Amino acid sequence: MLSKNKIKLIQSLNRKKNRDETGLFLVEGNKMVEESLRSEYLIETLVCTSAFLDEHPGINTQAFELIETDSETIQKASLLQNPQDALALVKQPKNCKSEFNLDQDLVLALDFIQDPGNLGTILRIADWFGISTLVCSENTVDSFNPKVVQASMGAIFRIKTWYTDLPLFLDEANKAQIPVYGTFLNGNDIYKETLSRNGIIILGNEGNGISEQVGQYVTNKLLIPSFSTNENKPESLNVAIATAICCSEFKRR
Amino acid sequence: MLSKNKIKLIQSLNRKKNRDETGLFLVEGNKMVEESLRSEYLIETLVCTSAFLDEHPGINTQAFELIETDSETIQKASLLQNPQDALALVKQPKNCKSEFNLDQDLVLALDFIQDPGNLGTILRIADWFGISTLVCSENTVDSFNPKVVQASMGAIFRIKTWYTDLPLFLDEANKAQIPVYGTFLNGNDIYKETLSRNGIIILGNEGNGISEQVGQYVTNKLLIPSFSTNENKPESLNVAIATAICCSEFKRR
Repeated sequence: MLSKNKIKLIQSLNRKKNRDETGLFLVEGNKMVEESLRSEYLIETLVCTSAFLDEHPGINTQAFELIETDSETIQKASLLQNPQDALALVKQPKNCKSEFNLDQDLVLALDFIQDPGNLGTILRIADWFGISTLVCSENTVDSFNPKVVQASMGAIFRIKTWYTDLPLFLDEANKAQIPVYGTFLNGNDIYKETLSRNGIIILGNEGNGISEQVGQYVTNKLLIPSFSTNENKPESLNVAIATAICCSEFKRR
Repeated sequence: MLSKNKIKLIQSLNRKKNRDETGLFLVEGNKMVEESLRSEYLIETLVCTSAFLDEHPGINTQAFELIETDSETIQKASLLQNPQDALALVKQPKNCKSEFNLDQDLVLALDFIQDPGNLGTILRIADWFGISTLVCSENTVDSFNPKVVQASMGAIFRIKTWYTDLPLFLDEANKAQIPVYGTFLNGNDIYKETLSRNGIIILGNEGNGISEQVGQYVTNKLLIPSFSTNENKPESLNVAIATAICCSEFKRR
């Protein structure tokens, strides 16, 4: 049975303050819950229907609190419009820098990404292109926001997100002579530039691009050229689209 | 003054049936209305504040019905959560094939794209990469849906969308020996394939990819390879992300 208090807890995870206090985040929908069960993340509570349990006979029901209920009750607790047969409360992993090595690895650095859908899509792109870590400015939307989690289509369980003082991080990268890339209107054509295997690609805010404070650490300015021949040229690409094109260019070579 | 009937008309354009009947679509927000004024599209009605008019002294106020009102009234009529100082009722252009030539041009063909945000983003990508036309299956979401229009960030005014019987169109392309590309899990690595300057790139449905009925006309199967080394590999890329990577690969060469 799903208590009123538990429903309150589930719904409270819509707010960062409550996620921080409990150390939990919310995962909804059969496919996403399956991903969480397969992942290394620790599940605290699984709420699901008996049908879901029947379909997943391998679940170690001793490993966490299991609450069996009906789909109407899950619907009541859910933040989604079309909830399914399962939701899970999952422990947030520790926010940790030690897992990448900038002498070898390529990471993405996010400068004030605001839209949860964009962050979820960027996680999914990083996952596809084998990029293990997103370094996020402290004002970037929280990666455990339920909308980010859902938009990531499971990538949240494979990609590390590390929130830190981005200018400080980039300053250290500059001192260590790690290449720092960012896209700018006056950058060099990404298709013609030599791109290194390691380093940092900065992705800027949806409306304003890379901030001045962060931009000063960029060592290699890139441009994704437009092929439009229209008089009214498009002004910009969506940040997730620019991320995809950058990752594709860095990884294909 | 904005009459009740006009407000009703504005809001009715949320539905395709009403857009079809009136031949109009709705454009909201200062930036999008500016784009509509700069475009070749015919404006039927401009609803805006006096501040908007002051900021745009070049507007030919004889060319359409002009309704000056306050922002509270615009808010009342608007479908947006944060409406601004202007909205416009714009005439839909004719749905027309004659504007591209497959012996020279590259076009995108959309097979049952359902999400308005995805279609808007695909329009924006086409705009950036100088692709003039989207050929859409009849079950693809309407490009004059207000959510598509807003997500296109103005691309709707520069990119033609043509709704047609997609299998029939592709059958003709096959007969004319036009290359037809599509991404499949068993396709050839897009980074290594020779890609032609002209032809058709098919983009499939969000959940199911390219349908069997449409897939049979593909002459060149492509794959965007994943670089993930994770045990649980990501299953797919979002369709707009795949579109961006395809367009980037076709255009950069």
